[in-house]
Amino acid sequence: MRHQEILARLAQPAASRIVLLVIDGLGDIRTADQPETALERARLPNLDALAARSALGRIVPVATGVTPGSGPGHLALFGYDPTEPEVDIGRGVLEAMGAGLQLSPQDVAARGNFATADAAGNLTDRRAGRIPTEECRRLVGRLHAALAREPVPGLEVQLEPGEGHRFVAILRGEGLSPAVSATDPQRLGVPPLPPEAEAPEAKATVERLRRAITVMERAIAAEPQANRVLLRGFSRLPHLPQLGDLHGLRCGAFAGYPLYRGVAAACGMRVVPCGKKFAETVDAALAHWDDFDFFFLHVKQTDAAGEDGNLAEKVRALEEVDAGLPPLLARRPEVVAVTGDHSTPAPLKAHSWHPVPLLLHGPYCFVDGSTEFSETAAARGHLGTFPSHQLMGLLLANAGRLAKFGA
Amino acid sequence: MRHQEILARLAQPAASRIVLLVIDGLGDIRTADQPETALERARLPNLDALAARSALGRIVPVATGVTPGSGPGHLALFGYDPTEPEVDIGRGVLEAMGAGLQLSPQDVAARGNFATADAAGNLTDRRAGRIPTEECRRLVGRLHAALAREPVPGLEVQLEPGEGHRFVAILRGEGLSPAVSATDPQRLGVPPLPPEAEAPEAKATVERLRRAITVMERAIAAEPQANRVLLRGFSRLPHLPQLGDLHGLRCGAFAGYPLYRGVAAACGMRVVPCGKKFAETVDAALAHWDDFDFFFLHVKQTDAAGEDGNLAEKVRALEEVDAGLPPLLARRPEVVAVTGDHSTPAPLKAHSWHPVPLLLHGPYCFVDGSTEFSETAAARGHLGTFPSHQLMGLLLANAGRLAKFGA
Repeated sequence: MRHQEILARLAQPAASRIVLLVIDGLGDIRTADQPETALERARLPNLDALAARSALGRIVPVATGVTPGSGPGHLALFGYDPTEPEVDIGRGVLEAMGAGLQLSPQDVAARGNFATADAAGNLTDRRAGRIPTEECRRLVGRLHAALAREPVPGLEVQLEPGEGHRFVAILRGEGLSPAVSATDPQRLGVPPLPPEAEAPEAKATVERLRRAITVMERAIAAEPQANRVLLRGFSRLPHLPQLGDLHGLRCGAFAGYPLYRGVAAACGMRVVPCGKKFAETVDAALAHWDDFDFFFLHVKQTDAAGEDGNLAEKVRALEEVDAGLPPLLARRPEVVAVTGDHSTPAPLKAHSWHPVPLLLHGPYCFVDGSTEFSETAAARGHLGTFPSHQLMGLLLANAGRLAKFGA
Repeated sequence: MRHQEILARLAQPAASRIVLLVIDGLGDIRTADQPETALERARLPNLDALAARSALGRIVPVATGVTPGSGPGHLALFGYDPTEPEVDIGRGVLEAMGAGLQLSPQDVAARGNFATADAAGNLTDRRAGRIPTEECRRLVGRLHAALAREPVPGLEVQLEPGEGHRFVAILRGEGLSPAVSATDPQRLGVPPLPPEAEAPEAKATVERLRRAITVMERAIAAEPQANRVLLRGFSRLPHLPQLGDLHGLRCGAFAGYPLYRGVAAACGMRVVPCGKKFAETVDAALAHWDDFDFFFLHVKQTDAAGEDGNLAEKVRALEEVDAGLPPLLARRPEVVAVTGDHSTPAPLKAHSWHPVPLLLHGPYCFVDGSTEFSETAAARGHLGTFPSHQLMGLLLANAGRLAKFGA
């Protein structure tokens, strides 16, 4: 039986609070050139003191050796096994969430790129020379205007400019399907691919979409750089079992960036607006202390610093989190977990497959003698190393929210 | 492929003995108020000396965060994955085993409670004021007498009084089914529920059972406190593959309490009568040294002490086990495993989800440098942390009872 299903069968009510603090990209690595990780280098008096009253361990977001994206990394923390097909969040949906767009269950989202084609219609640059964001905004305006002049029956297209050559497309209309193939051929010297139906129910979608693409490309045909649109990652909000139904939890999400709010909402959390600084995130959570049983707090800056290869900035972001912890801990939530959705080691300048350090504090967590919160202390902790999607089991158990399995 | 199935395919004979010593509720935790676990506090010279010639590790009975009942905890130790539906032992069957009743594969067992209803028939106490055990015995006598006077065709009901308001009901007859819903509504102010068929084949069972309940409740209608019976956990012995067939083992069970004998018997072990003290358990095993390849020895007192929150008694029970080990070890069984079916930390006063320490001694176990048997030593041991139901693999391997997988 799947782990989430076992937990759901055992759900029992309790008057306890669970705080899940996700420090994005938390884990780091030691290399010849970087002898200390960010956690090792940072001064973290509050986290270290908490570690001394906690159990440490490590979690593996997807599978051994597998680097997760932000979607799967967070879904795993919320108890979903990201390798299960129905847990998949498509690229389009994730981009739409990241742009802060509201999706209804019927909407189909796709990721878009502006691209360059030559006179023969063959692609010469799949990213249109990475046009400036302002230029992207102007071009999206032209596409919108063209679609307003020449609407495609049965298809409403909402476009949201992103950074550089990127944009998000949301398709709305009766009977749409996300079973549509990508139009990006992933190579140069050939024209963009027409979208194809990957299932019979997508025929109407594809027909309408081809007409919309024609309208859009006609509108930018005379542009010197960005004269084509490429679409991929057609997808719809996944039907995820909701955390309230599964575990009887009232869940609040406190995240400064839209992507994480979107993933949390897809799991049934209530998204509470809050700022991007950790102190603001904590303030928002404390202001809603009686509204929720489960508090998801998200810190983005650590991941951004890791992606930039900026160890000093990652250290600074960790120290900011540490400094912001006391008001949260002073409210004495029964269970506190501090971890990440994945590692973003500064030497890699990217997400990685390395297990993520985990600190778990609760009345029965087993105080394991750790004296600091670091990758190495975590590797030696009593919680061991286990899949991220099983963390919810420990959170619920420590919160007294799971009945005994069998007699 | 399931682990048990892999092992079964590789079974090969050997002249080795395996001793599996189950110290019930063995694992404990450190908290702010209990800085040492029972294993850490106890003086265990024999276990510590054995640890120095052994490999340590930890086992997870059901799944991360999941607290097992005694049934699943033991089935996992015997190699069955308790999350597989066909491994489920129902509440009624477990209670019947705990009462020492013999079940045939056709029998349906249920757990019973005496309860109190008011003049309108609505429940006022689902436990009949926790009547004394003697009173329960008297009432069960009245029920039996009434059923003897007014037998229900096709249904023989055997009742066994338990502690306080509890009893066990065994239903016998042609064509019975355990797919029967509970009659306990789990709340007050409403009448008991009539049993309902949860599958078409249970219709006849339900019809006969309703008549039996009418006869029984009429017999106690004038009782001031216990004037209703509530039944739940209708179940039948699971059809478990037998250990002898799976692994070619002659298995003997040495347990002082009926529940553990019952679970062992359900797996195909031969139950050998023995006393409740550890020395008596060891004596019985040694008296049957040539009859078995696999010896399951069970110690109950550690779990009982943990449930009472009595660390001192748990320490004493561990020291009693330690003192009783030398005669067993002197017979030089090839493989000795010391572990538990689950943790019962004294601070929790209940079973828990924490991994269970494991000591494995055998000629090729890998002496891992442990110097004591404790939760922390186990967390650092060479065996790592793995599912309890895979322990059988290590027992069989160390006993030379598994052929190579593939060429």
